[in-house]
Amino acid sequence: MFAPLATSKAALGLRDDVALLRGRAADDLVLTTDTIVSGIDFFANDPAEKVAKKALRINLSDLAAKGASPIGYLLTLILPKRIDVRWLRAFAKGLRADQRKYGVALLGGDMSSTAGPLSVSITALGSLPKGTAILRSGAKPGDLVFVTGTIGDSGGGLAALKTKKREAMLVERYRVPEPRVAFGLELRGIASAAIDVSDGLLADLGHLADVSNMHIDIEAARIPMSTALRSLWGTSEVALVRAATAGDDYEIAFTASPKKRPRVLAAAKLSRTRVTEIGVVKRGQGIRLIGSDGRPLRLKNQGWQHF
Amino acid sequence: MFAPLATSKAALGLRDDVALLRGRAADDLVLTTDTIVSGIDFFANDPAEKVAKKALRINLSDLAAKGASPIGYLLTLILPKRIDVRWLRAFAKGLRADQRKYGVALLGGDMSSTAGPLSVSITALGSLPKGTAILRSGAKPGDLVFVTGTIGDSGGGLAALKTKKREAMLVERYRVPEPRVAFGLELRGIASAAIDVSDGLLADLGHLADVSNMHIDIEAARIPMSTALRSLWGTSEVALVRAATAGDDYEIAFTASPKKRPRVLAAAKLSRTRVTEIGVVKRGQGIRLIGSDGRPLRLKNQGWQHF
Repeated sequence: MFAPLATSKAALGLRDDVALLRGRAADDLVLTTDTIVSGIDFFANDPAEKVAKKALRINLSDLAAKGASPIGYLLTLILPKRIDVRWLRAFAKGLRADQRKYGVALLGGDMSSTAGPLSVSITALGSLPKGTAILRSGAKPGDLVFVTGTIGDSGGGLAALKTKKREAMLVERYRVPEPRVAFGLELRGIASAAIDVSDGLLADLGHLADVSNMHIDIEAARIPMSTALRSLWGTSEVALVRAATAGDDYEIAFTASPKKRPRVLAAAKLSRTRVTEIGVVKRGQGIRLIGSDGRPLRLKNQGWQHF
Repeated sequence: MFAPLATSKAALGLRDDVALLRGRAADDLVLTTDTIVSGIDFFANDPAEKVAKKALRINLSDLAAKGASPIGYLLTLILPKRIDVRWLRAFAKGLRADQRKYGVALLGGDMSSTAGPLSVSITALGSLPKGTAILRSGAKPGDLVFVTGTIGDSGGGLAALKTKKREAMLVERYRVPEPRVAFGLELRGIASAAIDVSDGLLADLGHLADVSNMHIDIEAARIPMSTALRSLWGTSEVALVRAATAGDDYEIAFTASPKKRPRVLAAAKLSRTRVTEIGVVKRGQGIRLIGSDGRPLRLKNQGWQHF
């Protein structure tokens, strides 16, 4: 079922227990790994194709935020003992579609069984010209803060699923994120720092501020919300805070010098990506969300806490 | 707890979501991933340090069988919601000890929670001079078949644990394998094909025969068994078959031209590794275990079946 996905020579046809990548001096290699667990990161009855796409795309999103060009991935499936072949076939079909869409190949992997829920771990590899990776640590005082797409849709979709509402577009955003792979490539040489939004816009920009040893101010009113989410949650500051802390957006939040604003806008146009300026980097620590009265909003938490 | 393990620059101090490896033109990169699940691959009450070592070492064993020099690893922990900090601390301690022993570093990873049992996935990276990887596919007619160490100890340890016997050496072999990392490096340029023994000696040499498009004959009486295992299981052909199908040995089974026998023996001596000649590669398909009467033994199965 998976052998046809091993379209790269590096996979050795999945007939060895390893992947073998030829060394290239001109490139750096980016590695990332992310796992989704049934009942935690997706619903047990979510379609298998969408589970496969989500598992792959959240990893491609990490590569995109570094400006890396995706190469391939290793797949680990931990399956309940009563394995459903139809489920696996649909899962492989989802991967096949995304391999074509993103130009990646299965390089290897492992399967195990468990008495517990199904989980999917992917380790993705990308490459970029030596020294061009966009790290979290490069934000400078005075840099502008941008974000791609709209924020909070996935959280809205999750909330809709839980309350049995069916907001199709939002639910789709929760189930199958759209990693900003093409736009990430454009950001090389433009962004000073970047992160993909998985824990929540504020939480992730908080990580970026922390690693850069900087402070970030975000203007709440500038946070881009989709029409669908605004009609579900409204446009109050409560709704904005909810969007900014919801997580699972898989947009790219990044910083760039004000001098590079024209290049940011040109990159957005070139890759047909909505990009919104939402804040500024300052000396100091931490992150604040500034309300319409110019004062920081009080937040209970900034987003998804791991444990 | 894990940040002190990220001793490589490539890990970016675990403060980004990726690892960043500098490209090197002279080297190929080997990637492998293996997972262990509580209740399947180890016992829930096994010491956390040993679980950590097992998870890392079964991956290092895959690298060793390719002749690769280990660099580092990505770690994915899927943890039950009631997380035990002492368990995690002991787990990290086990990794720290093995990082020193094998010269590897934590490069990144992910943590998730689950309603089910704990699992540990590791993706390990190794490197070797361009074009020197030992694959499963290189066995040639007339090549000799060798195996390192002794076979069946881990299976004996598992059986002893299940029957409440305490065969300390065998149980330790089950809990904490000893990957043949140093010997694997010596095999470059000597072995025509190699595989690490995880599913079982016969099953894994069966994979090697299959991928090489060859047949392999193994002489049952030559299969190396430890004194401890012989005193537990005896030395009958039934015991030999049991050892050859038990799995979890993490020894290296390999093939080499008869002309290279002196170099195999020299490599064994240099790395103080027991190496036993156990069979021969022929034209054809499949694998046979030859009894003391010169006839193939009938086998129910060759080893661990995945599902």
